[in-house]
Amino acid sequence: MQYSSVSMERAISELSRLPGIGRKTAQRLVFYLLKCRTSEVERLTDSLVAIKERIKFCSICFNLTEEQSCQICTSEKRDRSTICVVEEANDVLALERTGEYRGLYHVLGGALSPLEGVGPDDLSVKELLSRLNGSTVEVIIATNPNTEGEATALYLEKLIKPLDVQITRIARGLPVGGDLEYADEITLTRALEGRTAI
Amino acid sequence: MQYSSVSMERAISELSRLPGIGRKTAQRLVFYLLKCRTSEVERLTDSLVAIKERIKFCSICFNLTEEQSCQICTSEKRDRSTICVVEEANDVLALERTGEYRGLYHVLGGALSPLEGVGPDDLSVKELLSRLNGSTVEVIIATNPNTEGEATALYLEKLIKPLDVQITRIARGLPVGGDLEYADEITLTRALEGRTAI
Repeated sequence: MQYSSVSMERAISELSRLPGIGRKTAQRLVFYLLKCRTSEVERLTDSLVAIKERIKFCSICFNLTEEQSCQICTSEKRDRSTICVVEEANDVLALERTGEYRGLYHVLGGALSPLEGVGPDDLSVKELLSRLNGSTVEVIIATNPNTEGEATALYLEKLIKPLDVQITRIARGLPVGGDLEYADEITLTRALEGRTAI
Repeated sequence: MQYSSVSMERAISELSRLPGIGRKTAQRLVFYLLKCRTSEVERLTDSLVAIKERIKFCSICFNLTEEQSCQICTSEKRDRSTICVVEEANDVLALERTGEYRGLYHVLGGALSPLEGVGPDDLSVKELLSRLNGSTVEVIIATNPNTEGEATALYLEKLIKPLDVQITRIARGLPVGGDLEYADEITLTRALEGRTAI
């Protein structure tokens, strides 16, 4: 059923475009916002407009930043000999949460996907290669462990191999807390292939 | 982990206030919005600001509307002898979806809840009573079947009884498609109490 009010219907359909938000959730959000004070709604909308105005890509690694270069690229504490290549800026966030990685990043902006028309020119591949000057010792390829991510990893491997830089790929295997019984065949195969000496 | 960018952190925390949206979902939404065109984000935020500016309460039934009175109250096609009393405006929406009800509504704006400090004066009870003039034959009390809703129903029943209007309460019982085995005791009790002749 369409709601009778035009502005309400518009807000619901705009909210439903967001990923993971269906019509019902959108409706619930609209009713919630109607109960909020106007100032609260404005604070929300202002914050959304602000990210579009302020946030841009880091000129070096294409991570998101409010400055010319991101905090990781400009940090004195990071290890400049390692570059971890990821698909999206939120992958940087995920890796930073581990607190284990101290090197630099390079955000590709996606993965190769002929079906969706994403070719090497749509990704920041050229920029990655130009960063691989003398100081880079290792490139960790941390694209997603799916078809597109693996294809991208293979493609990058071919390009980087001649450059005399060590290339590594993050391990694929059983997730911690996982269960052998319920693991799919490909994951198990990768876990066997990637076994390490103990 | 806090994201390094101030505006991003602000947008994430503003989005996380919304019901049903946690920090992770908020993060995903922010990354999505960053990929959208600015015009799309503005269309979203404009639509949210618009509902706050345009939508007000119907002067008769307290449903949400952009006009002085809502489409249901002003419609010629509705049966003016029946008033269905609900807690919130989204309950009207739910009942309208059935397409079964042709009468009017009255939105209380909540349910009695001494614990949360909601008393009769916080609800549109007085306005409901003043609507019960000669033309009203039946008042259907459709507050939620929980403690607060039942208490509100009882309270309204006491107030309306002297007014020579038929009072009914929506049926409580097993949901269609439900399973006796998994129904809780109170629902089963209500289903037994509310049994109808076949």
